[in-house]
Amino acid sequence: MKQESASSPTASLKTSGYGLLDTISSPADVRALRLDQLPELCADIRRYLIDHLSVNPGHFASSMGAVEIIVALHYVYDTPTDHLFWDVGHQAYAHKILTGRKEAFVNQRKKGGISGFPSPLESDYDTFITGHASNSISAALGRAIADRNTPGKENCKTVAVIGDASISGGLAFEGLNNVANNPNNLLIILNDNEMSIDANVGGLHAYLSELSTSAGYNKWRSKLYNAFRRKGVVTEEGKGRIQRFTNSVKSLVSGKQNIFEGLNLRYFGPFDGHDVIKIVKILNDIKDMQTPRLLHLHTVKGKGYQPAEKNPAKWHAPGMFDPETGEKISSVSKDSPLPWQEVFGRTLVELAAQDDRVMGVTAAMPSGTSVSRMLAEFPERTFDVGISEGHAVTFSAGLATGGKRPFTAIYSTFLQRAYDNIVNDVCIQGLPVTFCIDRAGVVGEDGVTHHGLLDIAYLRCIPNMKVAAPADEKTLRNLMFTSLHSDGPMAIRYPRGKATTKDWHTEMEIIEIGKGRPVIEHEETKVAVLTVGPILHEARKALEALEAKGMKVDLYDMIWIKPLDSGLLRHIASTHQILVTVEDGVITGGFGTAVTEWCRDNGFDVDIKTLGAPDSWVTHGTVEQLRHDCGYDREGIEATVAALCRTQS
Amino acid sequence: MKQESASSPTASLKTSGYGLLDTISSPADVRALRLDQLPELCADIRRYLIDHLSVNPGHFASSMGAVEIIVALHYVYDTPTDHLFWDVGHQAYAHKILTGRKEAFVNQRKKGGISGFPSPLESDYDTFITGHASNSISAALGRAIADRNTPGKENCKTVAVIGDASISGGLAFEGLNNVANNPNNLLIILNDNEMSIDANVGGLHAYLSELSTSAGYNKWRSKLYNAFRRKGVVTEEGKGRIQRFTNSVKSLVSGKQNIFEGLNLRYFGPFDGHDVIKIVKILNDIKDMQTPRLLHLHTVKGKGYQPAEKNPAKWHAPGMFDPETGEKISSVSKDSPLPWQEVFGRTLVELAAQDDRVMGVTAAMPSGTSVSRMLAEFPERTFDVGISEGHAVTFSAGLATGGKRPFTAIYSTFLQRAYDNIVNDVCIQGLPVTFCIDRAGVVGEDGVTHHGLLDIAYLRCIPNMKVAAPADEKTLRNLMFTSLHSDGPMAIRYPRGKATTKDWHTEMEIIEIGKGRPVIEHEETKVAVLTVGPILHEARKALEALEAKGMKVDLYDMIWIKPLDSGLLRHIASTHQILVTVEDGVITGGFGTAVTEWCRDNGFDVDIKTLGAPDSWVTHGTVEQLRHDCGYDREGIEATVAALCRTQS
Repeated sequence: MKQESASSPTASLKTSGYGLLDTISSPADVRALRLDQLPELCADIRRYLIDHLSVNPGHFASSMGAVEIIVALHYVYDTPTDHLFWDVGHQAYAHKILTGRKEAFVNQRKKGGISGFPSPLESDYDTFITGHASNSISAALGRAIADRNTPGKENCKTVAVIGDASISGGLAFEGLNNVANNPNNLLIILNDNEMSIDANVGGLHAYLSELSTSAGYNKWRSKLYNAFRRKGVVTEEGKGRIQRFTNSVKSLVSGKQNIFEGLNLRYFGPFDGHDVIKIVKILNDIKDMQTPRLLHLHTVKGKGYQPAEKNPAKWHAPGMFDPETGEKISSVSKDSPLPWQEVFGRTLVELAAQDDRVMGVTAAMPSGTSVSRMLAEFPERTFDVGISEGHAVTFSAGLATGGKRPFTAIYSTFLQRAYDNIVNDVCIQGLPVTFCIDRAGVVGEDGVTHHGLLDIAYLRCIPNMKVAAPADEKTLRNLMFTSLHSDGPMAIRYPRGKATTKDWHTEMEIIEIGKGRPVIEHEETKVAVLTVGPILHEARKALEALEAKGMKVDLYDMIWIKPLDSGLLRHIASTHQILVTVEDGVITGGFGTAVTEWCRDNGFDVDIKTLGAPDSWVTHGTVEQLRHDCGYDREGIEATVAALCRTQS
Repeated sequence: MKQESASSPTASLKTSGYGLLDTISSPADVRALRLDQLPELCADIRRYLIDHLSVNPGHFASSMGAVEIIVALHYVYDTPTDHLFWDVGHQAYAHKILTGRKEAFVNQRKKGGISGFPSPLESDYDTFITGHASNSISAALGRAIADRNTPGKENCKTVAVIGDASISGGLAFEGLNNVANNPNNLLIILNDNEMSIDANVGGLHAYLSELSTSAGYNKWRSKLYNAFRRKGVVTEEGKGRIQRFTNSVKSLVSGKQNIFEGLNLRYFGPFDGHDVIKIVKILNDIKDMQTPRLLHLHTVKGKGYQPAEKNPAKWHAPGMFDPETGEKISSVSKDSPLPWQEVFGRTLVELAAQDDRVMGVTAAMPSGTSVSRMLAEFPERTFDVGISEGHAVTFSAGLATGGKRPFTAIYSTFLQRAYDNIVNDVCIQGLPVTFCIDRAGVVGEDGVTHHGLLDIAYLRCIPNMKVAAPADEKTLRNLMFTSLHSDGPMAIRYPRGKATTKDWHTEMEIIEIGKGRPVIEHEETKVAVLTVGPILHEARKALEALEAKGMKVDLYDMIWIKPLDSGLLRHIASTHQILVTVEDGVITGGFGTAVTEWCRDNGFDVDIKTLGAPDSWVTHGTVEQLRHDCGYDREGIEATVAALCRTQS
């Protein structure tokens, strides 16, 4: 295992010298402060976040925006007896800092350090892992109802804090739709910064903007209210009725409707989410209410740091930066290859220019996936559907029924949210949707909730699906081109990070579906290594090292997981005694298992050793560290293959 | 293959003698009718549906309720140039009958006959397969945008018809939230019968009810409108503005808000969905509008057939019945075993009575899953969350964080919709949610969208998950009991239909996790058959037949797919040369592959033959027919095993 070296930049990070924050080791210390001290605490937390995240990168802009909400919640609520659910969890750094992890924050997102997301394994203050957006309302509702049904816990309170982008996910709506079904005291705080990672989209977004900026509202509110009371149109029946009434007036004047009231939720807001004293007062007012309710707070992403406030999308996860100037510090040489995403994005633009059937689809990740390139060039054929992966896939299926060729780019881990859509809406109908599966394999610092390790196993079992993994950008381009010119669904998986060569801009050509290629072949060898995807290059280095030691091993880039290359496999299995498969994915049900199934069904009696992710959860660290720990980096492959060569010789 | 016998009840079904319907062979014939003839056509269609579905069962109540909507759509729209999306598709029988499949309807849902759901493979009038609820808006939006971007198709129109239960699914909300994002002419018809398969739930349902029954609306509408105009609060800015205004007034008076307007959708309604002439007029009024819009129609499930109108839940899919009396015709002997679902439901009640941590969760299927039994006995601990499988699972995870033990019963095919929730919200956190996977394996007549064939493959690759399949009800009960008294998530899969014995009510006991059992063992045999689930009984019959022919074969009920029973496998693989695995699920990545992986990783060199569902889509027919076609019924197992015995001896 690799160790963090002593000269790591985080070693120099200070954890004191932050004013009031120095006095806080748990939320009890927050609650001991005077109300008027809270703004100062918030400022101290922001300094801490800037200093630390500029050196030890993480999710910056959303964390800066949630500081007052977090301080107010710990001030008013009796955490961890009361429960906070953060959605998505990367906004909750201030929560980690206030709940005993100020020092541990030095190593956040590093191997062995704390996670970048809430984690119950890490702290009793973290009620739930919230790595994927939109799950907080459902989970918090479950907790609120559990407490209500548990002797001694009836008075525990539960709060879900959800962003305006997260709330547009279908899961959040399912949660909202169920909140009023059973007695509970759930408080939902809508942290509305009008911005997901990229710009927010959708009717709900337009609705929230207009709801809160309605110019006529304040002017007409009291006039109408009094006029209506006089006319007897509306009688005063307590606070709830007034609340609904004023919302109705708001609707009337703005021409917009309150969706939350429509779902039987009491609605409060919008209020300034950076006025910590006011938030505390509001929370105190509503915290003992026994009905589910929603508090709408307006925040600014990147609040308190000018460069981030100006360009919050670029400051979502900015990497290292100079706190004084806001200049990004890049460790990447300009001579290095493009990221896989860039090659994908540029190729998509080329395909769109060639063929007007090509459509681009992304679910809230235009920058991350580089679909932004097509969005810039062909806005009318490019669709950012927001955080709604299921919709993205079914919408793509609809496009395909109309003769279009959607390229639907979704991170592997988020594609899990569209599983049924892939099965029912695309694969049963055999529609030509190209799934461009970004961040396949281990993703590094984002950790357990974000690795794309399951896609091979969960896609391979679906009839009609084709699954490929290019080892280099030329093959990525050819696979995209091939999918455009063939029938039915195809999944192309590629990882996070830099591709392999600067020479990416090759002429595209159709390649044969289900056709792999030999990379290293000797006259007579016992062991063959079979890979899919760019892990090929780790294997190649391993085999080159072994060759230098006199061990000759063959290497095959299978490219296709489904369909497998039967001809090539027949050749490999006939001429070797041991096959070693390597994949950046789970071993259970994965590529190595596909090869095993093939040998079983075709009567080949060879030994098969599979390298890949284990049947346990992989946590966070660098991609290199994680591959190393799982035993499928160069070193692991070399050790495994060497041992097999020795046992057989 | 089995053939439909000549004495099949459907052989006697007439397809003529239905008045105007006799003259209709395509929608063009509908469009040739006078407007005032349409009510008569609707009545004729209803007679046809009653006569046919009473003999050849299918989805009855929802189909009866959608007759006028279907007739009006084909009358107004130029199908199939214009596109109709049905959600869910089992409401669309009248559409099938009007679009050239009146005669084929005699064999609907039968092997070789037409599907019970729309299918593009079957007809150009079927734009999309809509077997799983809530996908129509996303798919239709894709189609509308594809057409708009296709020369010559710019004027094609697209309509999605969605029920009030379907629209509560998160996918439908994601669709709604995206409808107003891009220029398109999508019309969404909300077919609101206030009823999903079971009673509807959720805030949206409450909202829709109140929206449409608001007593004060008509009374106050004109008064307020005029008063407001005089005061200058609202100026008249064209129709859209008026529409929004009247909706706002509705909100004000009813204390409810218009959710659809909130999402930037023009809203029309509610209107009577059985007044076919009025629907035609409304559709003509709004069909050329170039903006997305929603038309809210009220219908009655089972309309036109008294017994079904009175008890629509029981008439969702009633089986055969006497059209005169409405009496159900049951072919099931009272002496036969209980369905698996019943054993599950009764056992759940027992567990809930024993342990107040037990919670029951279902997603719109309380009757289908028999969670209704717990709902009756312990209403405060039982949750029907509506069509929202993702929420059901994450909500269960939330309950589990509060110390509860949720038993979450979802059909295998629908659990696909909660894949990410299973991975992230349950398994990463290792929470003790028991997934009670109903309708696992082939389900018969509902066909390709409804088979539960993928669950073993998609669950087995998730770390922390346990997966078991009981062969009999005693084991089902013991697995449920075991899950209650152990840690972490567990999935228990069981099929549709009757279980195995009348003696179901055994004392529950904890069984060892990952422990299978021998069923038939001889002194020395070459072939061993390994099964999971009740397919064991088919295997047993096959082996008994072989034994009568002198072939001795061993049989093992593995019970657990994950973890596998290593000790037992070691014994089996050491003492046999050939293993035959049998499962009611896909072979690719399934149970047989799990056994193959185990042999590979543990150095056992045995031949393995896997029986199960193929890597192609299984369509509809009886469960027996489908298992037969896939080669894993008694006959298929016998043939496979006999051939293997012969080759080896």
